[in-house]
Amino acid sequence: MNMRVLVLGGNGFIGSHLVEALVAGGAHVRVLTRSGCQCPPSLHGVEYRYADFVADSVSVAESLVDVDLVVHLISTTVPATANMDPLADINGNLLPTVRLLQQMRDQGVSRLVFLSSGGTVYGDTQSIPIPEEHERNPVSSYGIVKVAIENYIAMFSAQHGLQSLVLRVSNPYGPRQGHLGVQGVIPTFFQRIITGDEIRIWGDGSSVRDYLYVSDLVSFVVGGINEDLSGVYNVGSGQGVSLKDVLSLIEEISGVSANVKYLSPRGFDVKKVVLDISKARKALDWEPLVPLREGCERYWKWAKG
Amino acid sequence: MNMRVLVLGGNGFIGSHLVEALVAGGAHVRVLTRSGCQCPPSLHGVEYRYADFVADSVSVAESLVDVDLVVHLISTTVPATANMDPLADINGNLLPTVRLLQQMRDQGVSRLVFLSSGGTVYGDTQSIPIPEEHERNPVSSYGIVKVAIENYIAMFSAQHGLQSLVLRVSNPYGPRQGHLGVQGVIPTFFQRIITGDEIRIWGDGSSVRDYLYVSDLVSFVVGGINEDLSGVYNVGSGQGVSLKDVLSLIEEISGVSANVKYLSPRGFDVKKVVLDISKARKALDWEPLVPLREGCERYWKWAKG
Repeated sequence: MNMRVLVLGGNGFIGSHLVEALVAGGAHVRVLTRSGCQCPPSLHGVEYRYADFVADSVSVAESLVDVDLVVHLISTTVPATANMDPLADINGNLLPTVRLLQQMRDQGVSRLVFLSSGGTVYGDTQSIPIPEEHERNPVSSYGIVKVAIENYIAMFSAQHGLQSLVLRVSNPYGPRQGHLGVQGVIPTFFQRIITGDEIRIWGDGSSVRDYLYVSDLVSFVVGGINEDLSGVYNVGSGQGVSLKDVLSLIEEISGVSANVKYLSPRGFDVKKVVLDISKARKALDWEPLVPLREGCERYWKWAKG
Repeated sequence: MNMRVLVLGGNGFIGSHLVEALVAGGAHVRVLTRSGCQCPPSLHGVEYRYADFVADSVSVAESLVDVDLVVHLISTTVPATANMDPLADINGNLLPTVRLLQQMRDQGVSRLVFLSSGGTVYGDTQSIPIPEEHERNPVSSYGIVKVAIENYIAMFSAQHGLQSLVLRVSNPYGPRQGHLGVQGVIPTFFQRIITGDEIRIWGDGSSVRDYLYVSDLVSFVVGGINEDLSGVYNVGSGQGVSLKDVLSLIEEISGVSANVKYLSPRGFDVKKVVLDISKARKALDWEPLVPLREGCERYWKWAKG
């Protein structure tokens, strides 16, 4: 891959794994990140720039110079917190992303990969698994903003020749993911098993999600870039697992019995999300390779060690 | 109607007609408007407050005191201009409307009527007429922001008990509508017929719209308030008319031959919009009463006089 790639958020959970894979594949990678390196050591050959994506539009413009493709992974909110302050969600995600689209257009950078949210853009739905053409009725601010960004990307693609790849990712998990209770249940549960802290579950634990190991997500992104893919794709495992079953698996792997408290369900939590990934499979001859048990075992090994 | 209604944008084209009807129906009306009265003289018994909806959140909060229901008609953009500056569209419409929803929740005002856009939220579609459950794939910033606002209204309804009536209005027209080329084709065409100025049509004039006379829109809003209606409704004539046919009708009514120039089509113009209004008809026993010819004749009489 002889390509110059800018990864916005390249030091985050998904970003750091992606940057490793891009470098291994021979790409020239520039990372724009807000803070110092969160988890992995700085990678040889990667150019790190430290700037605030939301507040510092000049640095964003500068980071676009001599770039072929942008992977946009920055999110200043997570589903669990976005509803508390929808104005901050719009200001921190929608506005700077639309500004990025304008800057890319003005600076002649024509390729974008954007990570949308398969877990929130569709909202509550009866049809499982959910195909990409399913209507988008998000019930949380996080999902509403992702839908608005998807729509602006489609508008810039239609009107300004942007070549865009939008990935509606299910629940990704893996090493380096935040475990403080807002980012992902798997790291959070493992962490609380380690510390003995109470695990709080909103609802009765029957809510079903589609968990994707981070290396399977990264392989789709890298394959999509290599194959010049564009369009909108669900990227998940295609398998639904209940929160209760995730917890049992984690108890089994760790050998520790969890201290669980069940709370009233939150209004913005969708009951069931399983993505139909047949379009992704077909487009790239791609397949999720890491089953949930193996992914959790890898995470556990990393977290302990 | 013994109700205290706040009309945001109550001096605009649609707002001024609505305020007249609400006052005639016995409502106590407060108007929040940016500027002095645009067209009609101030109405007896209406409380006018002058403040900027976008910049002055304190005045918006004050205007909500002692109000039962809010009708939100303010838009700082129109479809033709929103694409030029999507950031201004988000800042001027989405952000202050989400802030309004928060203020209404915090101040205990639980009823909202919002005017969305039947002409832009659906995007390009094959199925004509378009029912409300059709997926929303807007291709312009104006439509993208309207969809985001609709989604936030649904979220506040689900989570905070907001009772909302969302009207996806087709192309409303009538007296007091702006005629400077951006707001509506009917006033713009008539005005250019009067002045002899060139009429510019993007595309070949075959694009079809659903034109609704303003009194038919107002009767639906008033009926919806009276009947405590909530949900999402298409409000249009249910009839599709091409731009060419509108122009012929206007030439016929005015007795003047237009000076027309055809330009290349704009990327964000949808080819054909005709709304399926059966849900609105059923909900209120409502019917559009003014055919296009009669509405144009009324407009022409008003514009000349």
